[in-house]
Amino acid sequence: MQKPGRSSRAARGLAVQHPGRMTVLRLDVNREEDIRGAAERVEESFGRLDIIVNSAAMLHPSGKGETSLRDVSAQGIISTLTTNTVGPLVMAKYFAPLLQKGGGGFGQQPAEKAKQHSGIIVNITAKVGSIGDNGLGGWYSYRMSKAALNMATRNLSIELGRSRPKVVCVSLHPGTVNTDLSRPYHRNVQKDKLFSTEHSVDCLMSIIDTLNIEKTGKAYSWDGTELPW
Amino acid sequence: MQKPGRSSRAARGLAVQHPGRMTVLRLDVNREEDIRGAAERVEESFGRLDIIVNSAAMLHPSGKGETSLRDVSAQGIISTLTTNTVGPLVMAKYFAPLLQKGGGGFGQQPAEKAKQHSGIIVNITAKVGSIGDNGLGGWYSYRMSKAALNMATRNLSIELGRSRPKVVCVSLHPGTVNTDLSRPYHRNVQKDKLFSTEHSVDCLMSIIDTLNIEKTGKAYSWDGTELPW
Repeated sequence: MQKPGRSSRAARGLAVQHPGRMTVLRLDVNREEDIRGAAERVEESFGRLDIIVNSAAMLHPSGKGETSLRDVSAQGIISTLTTNTVGPLVMAKYFAPLLQKGGGGFGQQPAEKAKQHSGIIVNITAKVGSIGDNGLGGWYSYRMSKAALNMATRNLSIELGRSRPKVVCVSLHPGTVNTDLSRPYHRNVQKDKLFSTEHSVDCLMSIIDTLNIEKTGKAYSWDGTELPW
Repeated sequence: MQKPGRSSRAARGLAVQHPGRMTVLRLDVNREEDIRGAAERVEESFGRLDIIVNSAAMLHPSGKGETSLRDVSAQGIISTLTTNTVGPLVMAKYFAPLLQKGGGGFGQQPAEKAKQHSGIIVNITAKVGSIGDNGLGGWYSYRMSKAALNMATRNLSIELGRSRPKVVCVSLHPGTVNTDLSRPYHRNVQKDKLFSTEHSVDCLMSIIDTLNIEKTGKAYSWDGTELPW
């Protein structure tokens, strides 16, 4: 789910350290064929899936968000939308059947069987993708891609919450994380607001632990508070 | 701003009926060069602009919205986003300088000069583009394109509301209008909820008449009520 680079090397390193406990599949979310192929391999190997976290994203092809309308280009925004928005939706298309066969290993399962879920889709969103919270502007492509992704989450939650077995779908904002994506802006971030990837993942896993079908179709921040659309 | 067809023939007919009062320029919102060229022609001929209404849009390349995830394709959603979302933003990029030279001929101008606006950008959105209002799902591409467009409106309102002269930017929902876009769904619409284009334009013009800088950065329905994001 990630562009080749630091993260995929780290993933392969982990797989070597934990033989038999981790499988790394490489796919480009911009290629529908790649996504279909990866889903087929998961189906063959495991037959089902409990959770999917769509975290592949870019800020903008230039590496910097647009500071004003002058920096906007059709090509820049299309690239960003393709990776950040279309990618996760096409992932959902091919992986939803596997999530519907999932064992419900993540989140909270209420006693009532009709309210239990088999799988979870997490789309990694961003606070700057909240239209209502937007007071600063700029970063056109990234903001628009995450707003559209939030709509995808909402739509998926409706379709996959109606069927049975149910799949819980949420957007999660990981905070500002110490990654290449946010690197150009780190000097503007208060030190205690720049999260290590480990801390951010801990926060997100805490939220995931509390998810159930009542919480589907919403966006939550790293601290569990609901984000406005 | 419209694909060639019924509407552009109608526009050319009006121009013939009202010589010297109407200029029809054809452009494809999917081509940044077309947009730049049209802005240059408006600049040469008029030097400024009071209002722009971005109404070019498609439901989906197939003519029908996706009823479920199975119908989603990367290509379908990219085409829809390109026309419905990228097009209006790139229009804003090239026409904003002309709107900043506008005479403020539309909307309400308060006495206080600092709060007056020179121009207005209207992005035609849709109720189904409201994430918070979404209770039915489906229509992935169209819904996502309009949610992203609403973010563009919000972003534009911040950037163009900060500068002087100010440009007011809003998203307007025209109701369900009797056009080719909605034709496949007309039989599901109550008769008094299916608007003629004339009625819809009357409603939208009534809202436009009340706009000022205090109302920028929001989405309104045809009856003037605010739409949630």
